[in-house]
Amino acid sequence: MTDIKELLLSRIRDVADYPEPGVMFKDITPLLADPAAFTALTDTLAELAVEHGATKIVGLEARGFILGAPVAVRAGVGFVPVRKAGKLPGATLSQAYDLEYGSAEIEVHAEDLTAADRVMVVDDVLATGGTAEASLRLIRRAGAQVAGVSVLMELGFLGGRARLAPALDGAPLKALLEV
Amino acid sequence: MTDIKELLLSRIRDVADYPEPGVMFKDITPLLADPAAFTALTDTLAELAVEHGATKIVGLEARGFILGAPVAVRAGVGFVPVRKAGKLPGATLSQAYDLEYGSAEIEVHAEDLTAADRVMVVDDVLATGGTAEASLRLIRRAGAQVAGVSVLMELGFLGGRARLAPALDGAPLKALLEV
Repeated sequence: MTDIKELLLSRIRDVADYPEPGVMFKDITPLLADPAAFTALTDTLAELAVEHGATKIVGLEARGFILGAPVAVRAGVGFVPVRKAGKLPGATLSQAYDLEYGSAEIEVHAEDLTAADRVMVVDDVLATGGTAEASLRLIRRAGAQVAGVSVLMELGFLGGRARLAPALDGAPLKALLEV
Repeated sequence: MTDIKELLLSRIRDVADYPEPGVMFKDITPLLADPAAFTALTDTLAELAVEHGATKIVGLEARGFILGAPVAVRAGVGFVPVRKAGKLPGATLSQAYDLEYGSAEIEVHAEDLTAADRVMVVDDVLATGGTAEASLRLIRRAGAQVAGVSVLMELGFLGGRARLAPALDGAPLKALLEV
């Protein structure tokens, strides 16, 4: 596990002042371009999904799609995209969440999550946790169980873990790296 | 192959009047939620990538991420996201393309594609071909070779195949389904 962490960490690039001055952005594209690293990440997250009995993987638009989809295929479970408002054509459940300035909304196809499902949310980064928390609310409103939240990296100083705790209600939050 | 086509086709849902009146939208979310269908799709596209010697998979934001990322992992090659303008933090190449009204721009990290790469573009749908054509231009401008374009389905009546032909320059365009 230590070796995998070192491999993953070595493929994440710091980009200063993106998307705005003073922010150090964690860029995962070097990791995605390296098949050994991307495969190791996929396998590790898929093992977590299997271990926690997930029947569906939810990926959060857009980088969560890149991680969540291969994890679902590797774990042999379905993939469910959670998208920004207006992007899904069928009947949806919507959930608003607060941004630094204003608010945003995410949606899921209502029929993609049922009471028979245990759902793991996959994303690249846990920052303030706003989107992840809203996705957990969508999962619970659909009547499904939460199998957990799994992310590549957690920006611990932003307090996302505390924000997610009530919505997780005891389900595991796993970050492969803390940065 | 016929069995796979039937399986895939059975998991694509027609949604009338989305995103605007008169349009029949091809919704792939039932396919993504079905692990047997999503795995079959991934395996088939990965076989194409290997067959044509791809060293990288380009996925087009956002549904192309969902298909392209697992294909890259399955084929054992790198994944490179092509994103809408302003979403990539590093030094990018940009390519504009025409929309029905106005134009849009896509970008790729310049260092993700090199002269040593053969690149396969993966997306869910080939419609007018505007985004796919722009992505091929990006690949060639980066000095890489085009291994081909592979899509789940082609909307033949929109003429995307003809539009892509010059940029493909003999590289294969493969659609698993024509709808």
